[in-house]
Amino acid sequence: MRAVDLILKKKRGEAMSKQEIDALVRGFTKGDVPDYQMAAWMMAVCFQGMNGEETAALTDAMIRSGETVDLSMLPGVKVDKHSTGGVGDTTTLVIAPLVAACGGTVAKMSGRGLGHTGGTLDKLESVPGVSIELTMERFLSAVREIGLCVMGQTDDLVPADKLMYALRDVTGTVSSIPLIASSVMSKKIASGADAIVLDVKMGSGAFMQTLQDARSLAETMVEIGSRMGRRTVAVITDMNQPLGMAVGNGLEVKEAIELLSGKIPESDPLYAVSMLLASHMLMLAGLSSDEAEAKAKLKTALKSGAGLRKFSEMLAVLGGDTACIEDPEILCRVREKRAVYLDAEGYISAMQAEKIGTAAQLLGAGRATKTDTIDPAVGLVMHKRRGMFVGADEPVATLYINDASRVEEAVSMLKQAITISADRPKSSPMVYDVVTAV
Amino acid sequence: MRAVDLILKKKRGEAMSKQEIDALVRGFTKGDVPDYQMAAWMMAVCFQGMNGEETAALTDAMIRSGETVDLSMLPGVKVDKHSTGGVGDTTTLVIAPLVAACGGTVAKMSGRGLGHTGGTLDKLESVPGVSIELTMERFLSAVREIGLCVMGQTDDLVPADKLMYALRDVTGTVSSIPLIASSVMSKKIASGADAIVLDVKMGSGAFMQTLQDARSLAETMVEIGSRMGRRTVAVITDMNQPLGMAVGNGLEVKEAIELLSGKIPESDPLYAVSMLLASHMLMLAGLSSDEAEAKAKLKTALKSGAGLRKFSEMLAVLGGDTACIEDPEILCRVREKRAVYLDAEGYISAMQAEKIGTAAQLLGAGRATKTDTIDPAVGLVMHKRRGMFVGADEPVATLYINDASRVEEAVSMLKQAITISADRPKSSPMVYDVVTAV
Repeated sequence: MRAVDLILKKKRGEAMSKQEIDALVRGFTKGDVPDYQMAAWMMAVCFQGMNGEETAALTDAMIRSGETVDLSMLPGVKVDKHSTGGVGDTTTLVIAPLVAACGGTVAKMSGRGLGHTGGTLDKLESVPGVSIELTMERFLSAVREIGLCVMGQTDDLVPADKLMYALRDVTGTVSSIPLIASSVMSKKIASGADAIVLDVKMGSGAFMQTLQDARSLAETMVEIGSRMGRRTVAVITDMNQPLGMAVGNGLEVKEAIELLSGKIPESDPLYAVSMLLASHMLMLAGLSSDEAEAKAKLKTALKSGAGLRKFSEMLAVLGGDTACIEDPEILCRVREKRAVYLDAEGYISAMQAEKIGTAAQLLGAGRATKTDTIDPAVGLVMHKRRGMFVGADEPVATLYINDASRVEEAVSMLKQAITISADRPKSSPMVYDVVTAV
Repeated sequence: MRAVDLILKKKRGEAMSKQEIDALVRGFTKGDVPDYQMAAWMMAVCFQGMNGEETAALTDAMIRSGETVDLSMLPGVKVDKHSTGGVGDTTTLVIAPLVAACGGTVAKMSGRGLGHTGGTLDKLESVPGVSIELTMERFLSAVREIGLCVMGQTDDLVPADKLMYALRDVTGTVSSIPLIASSVMSKKIASGADAIVLDVKMGSGAFMQTLQDARSLAETMVEIGSRMGRRTVAVITDMNQPLGMAVGNGLEVKEAIELLSGKIPESDPLYAVSMLLASHMLMLAGLSSDEAEAKAKLKTALKSGAGLRKFSEMLAVLGGDTACIEDPEILCRVREKRAVYLDAEGYISAMQAEKIGTAAQLLGAGRATKTDTIDPAVGLVMHKRRGMFVGADEPVATLYINDASRVEEAVSMLKQAITISADRPKSSPMVYDVVTAV
């Protein structure tokens, strides 16, 4: 089987067999298929796509390129959650404790942030003392003891994805639904999840800019899950503004603690999306029979403080100082805070979430490249949401600053991100769709 | 300018600027743009194409990747000819001497054969003593003395094309009209041609399998020529059967000598296509004002033996033994000749020229890979053409064999190449179209 014939087959738009996909991924991972052939094949995939069978075969081949995590010794349905990446998206830190407090088992491998999007590991590390470099034994015993734990993805998990992603990044082949879907699902399945809730972000701050693309990605991932025997649900949620008010690592942990402390209203998007995702996790885990029952359980766990206690237990397992539970302000102590005012007053008719994420990154809250270091305390807090009126004397956001060198750039980026109109804009939904297996 | 942004631009189907194409080709040739980025870009070109301006810019950038040949010290319009590659295509060895005999200047850089197609250099080297490794000085002085010469393409001519072609070959990106057109035209223009006649082959033995594709390639190449100030004409000719009867290096030189000796009738496809191409060369060179006048001149050169004398003079310049002019049989002396009969009788309704070329290659007349050696004397001679009746007792071809190890394979390939029908098939044209600059 010559790699060039496999490229030509995909270029012609023909479906590849499981054996062919397997040979390509195995050859590429071993170094027998060079980067230039894989790049050409992935570009052909960008144009010709892959059917459900091919995409599942690709996911499977990627999983088998490395080690997999065996969670079978843990009790119950191991349910994982994944977001396709957004701005101000702190849902994992809210959901994992709440689901565990409701009897779920959440053994979660998370990633770091890049560009305008944040990562759960970076957020956790903003808590003094936290280390996400657990051994697998410690990780598993923690999940057994407290029902949840988060750790960094081990290096030997899905090496094909690391190699393919690095190549996609430099060859213009990132935005392909089968390649995105197989990348996400291979990592989730290799991490040992029995059931997966996917949060597909749609809008200005997301990979998927249209509902059509978001739905197509959601359907593709749910189909992979079904074909590979994993209960999978995808929720399509709005990313036309940051999900939470906070953008920055310590600031987002603080917001999660506030939510788990009952200080954030139910109408808040972060609250609503967290509850929706968590309720699907409980349903997939067989712990609730419908959404209403699941939400009621979750509210109880929230009001009783059981969720917050789970969060505190997890921090303790990770070596973190739990003083932040009582006093989350310690996570975001900075040299200087600066209010940002708009140049005009009116209703916020649109926000470009990506630019808001980039503004926080410019302050040091995120990475432009993988090797950049981040400042856990800095970032920004939005005071207004889409549809709200902003007066000339009202700050639209507050910046949390330690290094002032790029503040002007951040302010300008933030202002550019916000569009003002004289009339109140139509409201837009927070949740667009829920995609389940057919 | 990041290479990945250029890839993304082409992937989106946008036209690239001259500066962008230049940066990509220069970066790739210098090694700054890695193979995997160039492969991804070329695959995107396969899907999105390039407009006329882009294709000319690509050709120009490729030319400027290396040295160019300056033929300006030679008299007259230097007119070159190129075929997109066929089976039994000996036109160069017929045309170059005839055009020179009519006062034209033909300073031609040629290539070697690969796969089922032959190359002019390999054919010339079947004449004992011939060396195509001339110095540029000797080449130019030969053209000045006798009006024509053929030599191998120098290594420093269009290095970008060599690198790109090697990459296209292994990444499934060979069959792209802008990439094929820029590859051909960059080499022709870098070789110093003022005017170019292109023979675009169409049919079972050619890259272009449909008239639509062949016309598109012809138009693209003619447009490149026009944009770059070179008088260019493309003729689309049939490659649904070998052009000449002979397929094999010495055998094809023998056929060229026979044609130049007046032994091949005017109705013969090799004769007709050679005359058509040569007449366009005379017209582009300003030596004839119309096709009828050009053809009359060429016939005179043929009948007078002036063309054959030019051929003999060129062989002498290249160090070749001119005894083959009188006795071409010396070029194809083999251990064994074998007649091939079909399993049924009837009319030849179709031939797959590629398979006939491959049959000759299996006998040792061609290369499967670039490093294979070839046997100049072996190959095959067809006795029948498309549309002719073959009786059960009539050989359809004769194989010229030195190494018998793959003869059965060659016979089987040859038989597969020929389709027999009870009824006489409709005749098909030898020349489909002539494409000139608009």
